Amino acid sequence: MKDTFIPFRGIKNDVKKRLMCYKHDWIVGLTAGFRILAPTTYIFFASAIPVISFGEQLQRDTDGILTAVQTLASTALCGIIHSIIGGQPLLILGVAEPTVIMYIFMFNFAKNRPDLGSKLFRAWTGWVCMWTSLLLFLLAILGACSIVNRFTRVAGELFGLLIAMLFMQEAIKGLIHEFHIPERANPESTEFQSSWRFGNGMFALVLSFGLLLTALRSRKARSWRYGSGCLRGFIADYGVALMVLLWTVVSYIPAGNTPKGIPRRLFSPNPWSHGEYENWTVIKDMQNVPVLYIIGAFIPATMIAVLYYFDHSIASQLSQQKEFNLRKPPSFHYDLLLLGFMVLLCGLLGIPPSNGVIPQSPMHTKSLATLKHQLLRNRLIATARNCMRKQQPLGQVYGSMQNAYRQMQTALTHQEPYAPGLKELKESTIQLASSTGSLNNAVDESIFDIEKEIDDLLPVEVEEQRVSNLLQSLMVGGCVAAMSVLKMIPTSVLWGYFAFMAIENLPGNQFWERILFIFTATSKRYKVLEECHASYMETIPFKIVAVFTLFQTVYLLVCFGITWVPIAGVLFPLMIMLLVPVRQYILPKFFKEAHLQQLDAAEYEEVLTLQLNLSAEGELSRTTSFVDDGEILNGIITRSQGEVRQTCIPKSSKIQGYQIKYTTFRIPRLPDQVQNPHVNQLRGNPNIVTLEVEVLGEDPLGREDKVH
Amino acid sequence: MKDTFIPFRGIKNDVKKRLMCYKHDWIVGLTAGFRILAPTTYIFFASAIPVISFGEQLQRDTDGILTAVQTLASTALCGIIHSIIGGQPLLILGVAEPTVIMYIFMFNFAKNRPDLGSKLFRAWTGWVCMWTSLLLFLLAILGACSIVNRFTRVAGELFGLLIAMLFMQEAIKGLIHEFHIPERANPESTEFQSSWRFGNGMFALVLSFGLLLTALRSRKARSWRYGSGCLRGFIADYGVALMVLLWTVVSYIPAGNTPKGIPRRLFSPNPWSHGEYENWTVIKDMQNVPVLYIIGAFIPATMIAVLYYFDHSIASQLSQQKEFNLRKPPSFHYDLLLLGFMVLLCGLLGIPPSNGVIPQSPMHTKSLATLKHQLLRNRLIATARNCMRKQQPLGQVYGSMQNAYRQMQTALTHQEPYAPGLKELKESTIQLASSTGSLNNAVDESIFDIEKEIDDLLPVEVEEQRVSNLLQSLMVGGCVAAMSVLKMIPTSVLWGYFAFMAIENLPGNQFWERILFIFTATSKRYKVLEECHASYMETIPFKIVAVFTLFQTVYLLVCFGITWVPIAGVLFPLMIMLLVPVRQYILPKFFKEAHLQQLDAAEYEEVLTLQLNLSAEGELSRTTSFVDDGEILNGIITRSQGEVRQTCIPKSSKIQGYQIKYTTFRIPRLPDQVQNPHVNQLRGNPNIVTLEVEVLGEDPLGREDKVH
Repeated sequence: MKDTFIPFRGIKNDVKKRLMCYKHDWIVGLTAGFRILAPTTYIFFASAIPVISFGEQLQRDTDGILTAVQTLASTALCGIIHSIIGGQPLLILGVAEPTVIMYIFMFNFAKNRPDLGSKLFRAWTGWVCMWTSLLLFLLAILGACSIVNRFTRVAGELFGLLIAMLFMQEAIKGLIHEFHIPERANPESTEFQSSWRFGNGMFALVLSFGLLLTALRSRKARSWRYGSGCLRGFIADYGVALMVLLWTVVSYIPAGNTPKGIPRRLFSPNPWSHGEYENWTVIKDMQNVPVLYIIGAFIPATMIAVLYYFDHSIASQLSQQKEFNLRKPPSFHYDLLLLGFMVLLCGLLGIPPSNGVIPQSPMHTKSLATLKHQLLRNRLIATARNCMRKQQPLGQVYGSMQNAYRQMQTALTHQEPYAPGLKELKESTIQLASSTGSLNNAVDESIFDIEKEIDDLLPVEVEEQRVSNLLQSLMVGGCVAAMSVLKMIPTSVLWGYFAFMAIENLPGNQFWERILFIFTATSKRYKVLEECHASYMETIPFKIVAVFTLFQTVYLLVCFGITWVPIAGVLFPLMIMLLVPVRQYILPKFFKEAHLQQLDAAEYEEVLTLQLNLSAEGELSRTTSFVDDGEILNGIITRSQGEVRQTCIPKSSKIQGYQIKYTTFRIPRLPDQVQNPHVNQLRGNPNIVTLEVEVLGEDPLGREDKVH
Repeated sequence: MKDTFIPFRGIKNDVKKRLMCYKHDWIVGLTAGFRILAPTTYIFFASAIPVISFGEQLQRDTDGILTAVQTLASTALCGIIHSIIGGQPLLILGVAEPTVIMYIFMFNFAKNRPDLGSKLFRAWTGWVCMWTSLLLFLLAILGACSIVNRFTRVAGELFGLLIAMLFMQEAIKGLIHEFHIPERANPESTEFQSSWRFGNGMFALVLSFGLLLTALRSRKARSWRYGSGCLRGFIADYGVALMVLLWTVVSYIPAGNTPKGIPRRLFSPNPWSHGEYENWTVIKDMQNVPVLYIIGAFIPATMIAVLYYFDHSIASQLSQQKEFNLRKPPSFHYDLLLLGFMVLLCGLLGIPPSNGVIPQSPMHTKSLATLKHQLLRNRLIATARNCMRKQQPLGQVYGSMQNAYRQMQTALTHQEPYAPGLKELKESTIQLASSTGSLNNAVDESIFDIEKEIDDLLPVEVEEQRVSNLLQSLMVGGCVAAMSVLKMIPTSVLWGYFAFMAIENLPGNQFWERILFIFTATSKRYKVLEECHASYMETIPFKIVAVFTLFQTVYLLVCFGITWVPIAGVLFPLMIMLLVPVRQYILPKFFKEAHLQQLDAAEYEEVLTLQLNLSAEGELSRTTSFVDDGEILNGIITRSQGEVRQTCIPKSSKIQGYQIKYTTFRIPRLPDQVQNPHVNQLRGNPNIVTLEVEVLGEDPLGREDKVH
């Protein structure tokens, strides 16, 4: 994306490129079958639960004019529109906390004006939205999103961590409130006696920590040791939903002996109750707003526009990070334009508008990467097994797998076949086969562990489609109807879920990993290197890494502090924006350019990339091979987000205190039994490099022989 | 230990052999310095907390005649006597649950007899103890403990798991009771209102799960990634004590807003209050017991004698398992004789007697193994560093280390130098040195990672001494004085601690590991093999392992069921004793003898053992080398209890579904840069074996070279 500020060009480009893969977006999603439900459910919970919670907050603070029904409706409506005609379908839309804060501020302003009052509040917000959308149109048309690519990794990760802190803050605040009498509640009722409040608070601790711990565990179910693979896969896919269900059931266990309000549950109005139809009359009321207020609405509108411009673009960018190897084009300009329309629509309906949200959007991409991996894996394994059953020789097996892999990529036929992972698979299998002289013989699984091979070699790919986004939006919409069921969820489960979202998004954030690295004992640093191959740790002195991380941490805390400022706090994204000039003009004065580039690499890959040409402009070069050992499906994104494991052998390098020599070497005349060795991993002892060799046939050399 | 039933011979042998190392027992303990406090504190908590809890139980059920003061006094008294003049100082004594159950039963019997009553209850138990000690004397003199060596692994591990189940049951029961009104409490007081009871129960859940989870974590602190090694070591050593302290502090956080009884805390009488002096008049009262009851006391006495004979011997055996590589002799006969004296003493004082307890005794040995490892490690590292500072050549460094190692073993000078681990260390370092031609040059740590080498090669050894046992007994005695401090511990922390003790003792129990193995997904079984090298998994068909484990599980559940039978339940050890004939006569009808020997191996070692002669009879052959990777101090005992990691290369073998070929092979003419490769580990892919090679100097062969 070039810095092009020529009007409309950005939008035109976006539309043109996205239209090319529009059909594919649907076909891919629909052919994924029922498996698409796993990421859909995952994102639905991540999307709906905060929106409901924010709705409750709105209801308390706007005297019930806006409720969870409106926030859910807005999220569903905007989500459906965006998933169908939006540019980047990975982006998840929702009513976010800053929107809620702005609306509460506007309500407090309006209700004290005699010529506005709470009656004309919605009409006035309609005007605010109108101005906002106008500003968004302008920004989109003028190509303001081109600035987004100036946002480096530092900015994105700082923002991600800030959002995690805000979610965690929300969780802690919520838990503390469980011990207190809620505002606007009747302090005389039984459940607010100090004894019951104590019990309620303690029960809330049990429920929220229960949900947090079990949900975190369930996400790792694929690497559990116990239970069938099928069950483990199911738990990993739907664990969060299951745990919300489980802890809601648990919350009913003491029901017989406790008053009705313990534990506290979601409180939401019946969507069909009186007053909910007033949304349809907002347009009519807008004519009654005094002119002065219509003009004055421009002030909050600028704040909201800046906020949305920033949030929407960053959410979109974080959901399309390099290491996901996306193959379809981004669409920042067009999406901002569409957001303008949606803001207008929400304003006219009197509901708070939605925008792109963090961390849900990157969570969406991650869950789709897991899905894609499973789909590819199952297909290839089935193909290979089928061939083996037919007693086909290895060469043919590989050929069939290659075909199957290509079929999974069919829709984008005008591009190069993309299979670096499979090529390696071929190499290793062919080598294996030729060593046993069985290239033309039938193979079986005793010599060819197909599952393991495929897990090791499949690259990270994302199932880029529109179905999951549409489905989750529809499910959010369904929540409005299912309000009576949702009411059964205890609020404490909600706080646990907030904490879960905060923690779930930490791994893979290099800023976070650097903070951990600093606190890692010197003797354990090699372990960090073993797990996430972070190149900066090898090339940059520890002190520099520490100082840089300290700077980021201070900046983060300043941003966090700003969110506490009453109203201006919602504009904390401006602080992140300020990072762009800071990074460009101030940081180079304190750090070497080479170090900055390493620490703030926008280009994550170090290994050779395949240049793909989907569009004529060649904007896409998001490909890299990805190798991981062991639990691919867990590690695939989280461990290595932002840092690709190297498949080729890296050069010798020196880490502070460690003399590490990656190397391969020619060993002449290995016996026939030893085949296909390759460097395996960095071990605790820096002088030791591990060679992997395959050993075939019986051991003809006797078991006591040692290598000399 | 031969099956010798010649009167007094067993006792004589025991005394003779233990006397030989009596002085050493003290010297070693005293020279360990302050580090001895780590195992001492660990065992003190494991010993005192259950004893206090059992004391509370006694107090409730004997109308306050016996309290925690008496149980603590008995534990401290017997502990001090045993640690000073006992045979096996690894054995931990304490008042156990079966004793408590017997005493409650006897109280209920006595209080309803008009000519006995609760007044003469203590005097009557004095007579019971007198009979019991008489029976124990007889058993000891006749050499009944010779039977102990017929108890195979199956019996020991089943017993261990049963104890874990009983502890867990106690924890769960305790937690449930936190929601109810305790017996004999005033149900009218504020804290027993249903609202406060609910709060109390929920708070108890928070506290006990908090303690359980943090205590389990803290034990693994040495492998944590964060914090200095010193801090991590401290947390691992004293974590349990710290966590009891931490959660006791947490329990005071809501103190201002809750009634005094929430959370419930330990309730114990002031040891100096009226009535506590009655213990000294028991001997006088014994004359007032009617003759009929004196004779009748023989009936409970037989039950207690059988119970103690069994418990004491098994506890002693489990604390001296093969894989601990103990080097001092056991002392079953003499210890049983001494137990007889101690029972008599307790009887005359009117306090419930103590006996050897599980799981505290094996916990004691494990914690001493950790201590010994640290002592050896620190000494060797200091020696090596010192030599390196003096620029000594590698040969001399090794010589000094060898000397230092020998000095740590000095007291038993009449035995062979025992250093299989160090020999390997020598080999690897010499090889390393000769490869660089630096055998006579000074070495530095860049080529000789001394810490890592030592961790890898030190064998499991236990610091066998009397100091930790004496100190912990004194600390238990100190509890009587510190009753007012102990009262601050919430009961819920106690339940969490019970659960901790149950879980802490599961790893290393092969029976438990087999149960887990059965539930392990087929595709993950290789992981189990990677971690604990359990030979039975390789040589015995999975189905046989499953059936055998199922048999054991059913037997375990029957034993567990028997503990629920009102009084006869305390004799559940008889069921374990029954396992001896079952194992010898019934099991061979269903399983192949070879399989049984593998599954029920009393000889744990497979690798070559060094035969040591401490005594003339050559009873000790408890040595084996032990290699572990990574976190030695955690893994050392728990992971491999009962199964020694093999240091030599095992033969090819076939596990169900896996074709595993361990092998080494001669690779001719390796380049000079590649030195000292050895087979590393079994990998996921059964066809792959890993070779470790050390790479020295720069990479002269270019980085793109592959092995052919």
